[in-house]
Amino acid sequence: MIKLYYAADTCSLASHIALEEAGAEYSTVRIDFAREEQRSPKYLAINPKGRVPAMATDRGILTETPAMLAFIAQSFPQAHLAPLEDAFAFAQVQAFNSYLCSTLHVAHAHRMRGHRWADDEAAIAEMRRKVPESVGACYDLIEREMLKQPWVMGEAYTICDPYLFTLAQWMEADGVDPGRLPKLSDHRRRMSERPAVRKALAEEQG
Amino acid sequence: MIKLYYAADTCSLASHIALEEAGAEYSTVRIDFAREEQRSPKYLAINPKGRVPAMATDRGILTETPAMLAFIAQSFPQAHLAPLEDAFAFAQVQAFNSYLCSTLHVAHAHRMRGHRWADDEAAIAEMRRKVPESVGACYDLIEREMLKQPWVMGEAYTICDPYLFTLAQWMEADGVDPGRLPKLSDHRRRMSERPAVRKALAEEQG
Repeated sequence: MIKLYYAADTCSLASHIALEEAGAEYSTVRIDFAREEQRSPKYLAINPKGRVPAMATDRGILTETPAMLAFIAQSFPQAHLAPLEDAFAFAQVQAFNSYLCSTLHVAHAHRMRGHRWADDEAAIAEMRRKVPESVGACYDLIEREMLKQPWVMGEAYTICDPYLFTLAQWMEADGVDPGRLPKLSDHRRRMSERPAVRKALAEEQG
Repeated sequence: MIKLYYAADTCSLASHIALEEAGAEYSTVRIDFAREEQRSPKYLAINPKGRVPAMATDRGILTETPAMLAFIAQSFPQAHLAPLEDAFAFAQVQAFNSYLCSTLHVAHAHRMRGHRWADDEAAIAEMRRKVPESVGACYDLIEREMLKQPWVMGEAYTICDPYLFTLAQWMEADGVDPGRLPKLSDHRRRMSERPAVRKALAEEQG
């Protein structure tokens, strides 16, 4: 059975929602960032990167949200969470998720994790200052060029949707006004009404 | 036929090598960063992100290295560039490539692309200063925990190998001494001997 290691208010929510959408049998283990559990020897034995999410499967541990989401889609094909039979359409799904992890999430991370790339406090503050602009540019591009409707890929709900929803939870705290992003705002509303999303959020915030 | 948009000394080399390894019929279009061609209206119509790589296919444009590499592997299954019939093994490949794009490449980007996340010159200089440490930590983790031998995934050469080789080209300029990384050094040497790598490098550097 799958075991998901997650922390509240992190990108692990995307995999949590996807497991719910897939109808997977799974359990969760909460990692407490306030107590730095992600750096404990016990957790580092599971994920040497000291990050969430991680997912224990019968075959071993998986990490990295785009890889975990694709694994969930491939492991539960009856849930139709990705166009598995169409290499080009699958690549479009993966390209969207890759953009989220390597560009949007990275821009966001400069608000609270600047110490990854600088030690000087003034430099860390300067990174934090630019987050509304750098994160906002990502959302503008998503709104203008990437987000079809009603879901990211159009009519079909895919593993792109929980991932976008998860990062978009942080939009206001990143200093981006959702008022200028009508398609993204509509997407957040649709997502928040899904039973799988409500269940995952209730567990993580409970 | 596939058309690859690339720039010299960028991560597009990974897809270039993978196309060679796949035996694909393809052509290339060089984008000149010195002339800012990646921001020209003509190129932005192809890739609104203003980055390389991009790949034109019969079905449309693809971007993002991990997605393009998986697409190449799936489109040319006879080349055996990924374990396509095994969702867990495929996810391990994807997790490795996702780590490269979202953590290693991002750490590296703070050396020359700090303006993405800060405007202040002192902050940009401070980011540059920390690159040997942040990039070095990624390589230490890859050396210790991720890189099997002879190839990233062990006996099978996969789409992880050209991607790692591409980023590792920048190791010395990032201030990381390959002398402390024997497995990575061995991987670079093996890669540089492959005909597909020699051919792609010769074209890009010619």
